[in-house]
Amino acid sequence: MRELKERILRDGRHLGGGILKVDSFLTHQVDLGLMMRVGQELARRFWGMGVTKVLTAEISGIAPAVLTAYALGVPVVYARKHKPITMPSEVYHQTAPSHTKGGVVEMNVSPEFLGKGERVLIVDDFLASGQTIGALARIVQESGATLVGIGCVVEKSFEGGRSLLSSLDVPIESLAVIAAMEGERIVFVE
Amino acid sequence: MRELKERILRDGRHLGGGILKVDSFLTHQVDLGLMMRVGQELARRFWGMGVTKVLTAEISGIAPAVLTAYALGVPVVYARKHKPITMPSEVYHQTAPSHTKGGVVEMNVSPEFLGKGERVLIVDDFLASGQTIGALARIVQESGATLVGIGCVVEKSFEGGRSLLSSLDVPIESLAVIAAMEGERIVFVE
Repeated sequence: MRELKERILRDGRHLGGGILKVDSFLTHQVDLGLMMRVGQELARRFWGMGVTKVLTAEISGIAPAVLTAYALGVPVVYARKHKPITMPSEVYHQTAPSHTKGGVVEMNVSPEFLGKGERVLIVDDFLASGQTIGALARIVQESGATLVGIGCVVEKSFEGGRSLLSSLDVPIESLAVIAAMEGERIVFVE
Repeated sequence: MRELKERILRDGRHLGGGILKVDSFLTHQVDLGLMMRVGQELARRFWGMGVTKVLTAEISGIAPAVLTAYALGVPVVYARKHKPITMPSEVYHQTAPSHTKGGVVEMNVSPEFLGKGERVLIVDDFLASGQTIGALARIVQESGATLVGIGCVVEKSFEGGRSLLSSLDVPIESLAVIAAMEGERIVFVE
């Protein structure tokens, strides 16, 4: 997605160690014109696959997942890090090591909102190591729903997430794929 | 907002102790048709007030804030509970006691995205005790920006948040105001 790549080149910053700062339009402040077009583009790539629900993880996956789900005309469910008191005691629960914060991220989804017959598209802001998305995929499997695809805003191909997720055997679409970050330079896969 | 009240009556559940379960359409699974109309209605109520930015708190404020900001044509900023490594060391920081989870909620906003000249609308899913929104308002003041209003999806008027926030002297709009929850019964303010 050309607009997104241009925005990353203009406003993104490599902080070193493969960390990309895109908090002016994606992960802290969100540009909603751009994000609506991101949602429409992800929806277009999974159109006709019978998606009934979009699943994402807190926190920065929520904005792109909300707008993808809106474009597809289906609800979004976001896995919660902490179980709120409104959640039943038995939930689908998985963990993943946190890439940018250290420690472990918990993911909880209520069985009320995911189960047999659902066709799920996972949407997240980043595909890096693939650990978070892998945990979401295990939640989909645990629930008996069918995973139909994975859509990401930005992929860092050099972190190997795509190969980790290849055993899921579903299409993986990323709107901007970064092959390398060298100093100030951000190089996309064409 | 009639559609929202009907949805709360149909799908909401009083879990006791003033806790309203609305996770089938607002706080865990999100109905995006409804949420787009919620965003449009909040935008309508603050139209013409020169809002340049919507501010919300993680997590369940994000979906309504995203769609309100989209309808207003401005960016959204969400205060982060945990400072990601992409955030500068000096940030606007406030805390509020957590209503539904116990403990304290941290809120961090980067000075890159809030400051003098901004006209800020705070949007959140619930107005209950008003503590979270009060902390967001202090962040707005600290940044030198101008707070122009507060928009909430659901207000529980019996928890006193509106009076806590009255000293801010800005309009407060809630789309469904609950006066009381007695057993299974949810009573709206008309």
